[in-house]
Amino acid sequence: MKQKAVVLMSGGMDSALCAGIAAEQGYEIAGLHLNYGQLTEARELQAFNQLCDYYNAIDRLVVDVKYFSQIGGSSLTDNSIPVPPASFDKSNVPNTYVPFRNANILCIAASWAEVIEAGALFIGAVEDDSSGYPDCRASFFEAMQQVINLGTKPSTNIKIVTPIINFSKMQIVQKSMELNVPLQLTWSCYKNEDKACGECESCKLRLKGFSLSGYRDPIEYV
Amino acid sequence: MKQKAVVLMSGGMDSALCAGIAAEQGYEIAGLHLNYGQLTEARELQAFNQLCDYYNAIDRLVVDVKYFSQIGGSSLTDNSIPVPPASFDKSNVPNTYVPFRNANILCIAASWAEVIEAGALFIGAVEDDSSGYPDCRASFFEAMQQVINLGTKPSTNIKIVTPIINFSKMQIVQKSMELNVPLQLTWSCYKNEDKACGECESCKLRLKGFSLSGYRDPIEYV
Repeated sequence: MKQKAVVLMSGGMDSALCAGIAAEQGYEIAGLHLNYGQLTEARELQAFNQLCDYYNAIDRLVVDVKYFSQIGGSSLTDNSIPVPPASFDKSNVPNTYVPFRNANILCIAASWAEVIEAGALFIGAVEDDSSGYPDCRASFFEAMQQVINLGTKPSTNIKIVTPIINFSKMQIVQKSMELNVPLQLTWSCYKNEDKACGECESCKLRLKGFSLSGYRDPIEYV
Repeated sequence: MKQKAVVLMSGGMDSALCAGIAAEQGYEIAGLHLNYGQLTEARELQAFNQLCDYYNAIDRLVVDVKYFSQIGGSSLTDNSIPVPPASFDKSNVPNTYVPFRNANILCIAASWAEVIEAGALFIGAVEDDSSGYPDCRASFFEAMQQVINLGTKPSTNIKIVTPIINFSKMQIVQKSMELNVPLQLTWSCYKNEDKACGECESCKLRLKGFSLSGYRDPIEYV
């Protein structure tokens, strides 16, 4: 019997590639999507469901984490803080940083993984383009692995897998092409839900990845 | 200016004592309550609010974590699994264990603590009466401290404080009396919301603590 992997899937390219890598490694996919009240949630959820269909997910779960809006402190979840223009400056933690988000979502994923007896938990964190977020670094994930080992039942064994942590967006596009990851189903734009804006930080990173890899982005832009 | 402490407050005795200890140590209290869909939530929320009033909480936050019911795997959050009778057997993880719950709630608390710039995070975990829950042990909290150190902004310093981790329920009652913690405002029963049942695991632990300490429990029982 195949082992299960919980794959955190926002609906973007990084998590789609994670699903592709997990499938290639022989795991059955259990897709986990988090709704934390972002502007483009409906479009991301659609991408999540289409990706789950594509990978024949044996299980899928959508969890409401709107509490991030209550907690605030980030332009992505607090409407009173403006989203800044795209920036590749990594020296400061930008205001799009949602405080301690990855720890929160890994805990939710680990709870579910424990219940469904999954052996792995894939997360598409990328150190390079994470603009200085402290919870996107390898050392953080190692510490989180310890917490999972100590805080779950003795019979539970969940391995955190960060398969693209050292990838550039160019490599993400290249590897996705190699594994036939359906990038046409993914959504990255922070702003629009019909045609991608091409201007926000997320669109710019995506377009840069396609441009450098020499592939054409299959989604539509305004 | 006083430093802030986020205090996780279910509304029970353990967390009320935590608030008392934090107040005694000179912290301003920011009360955090989690609604994870338990049967007696309305009564616990009332206890939480009254405790926040008593301690002049400068901030309070109630977060919906009903996703634990979606994830299931525990008799406390999944109605299809019966709550077992009280048991003091610590050799097995009982089905009241909510998978990885403390990690989840510490992450939420750490996110909030980071935003409001609190210096401490008090949690009333008790190793002795936690019936074998893996996420109630000191080693787990140490690992979690590492995750908070690594996963938050460099300017953030949040210390996890588990002031009663080695206390028995008897010591919890004694220390509460010593610090004038208003135990009459607390709620422990898993089953009822008007008069405590006196029969569930939580009531039995509470009553045992009062009995051994020689104090009378100020709340009413059926």
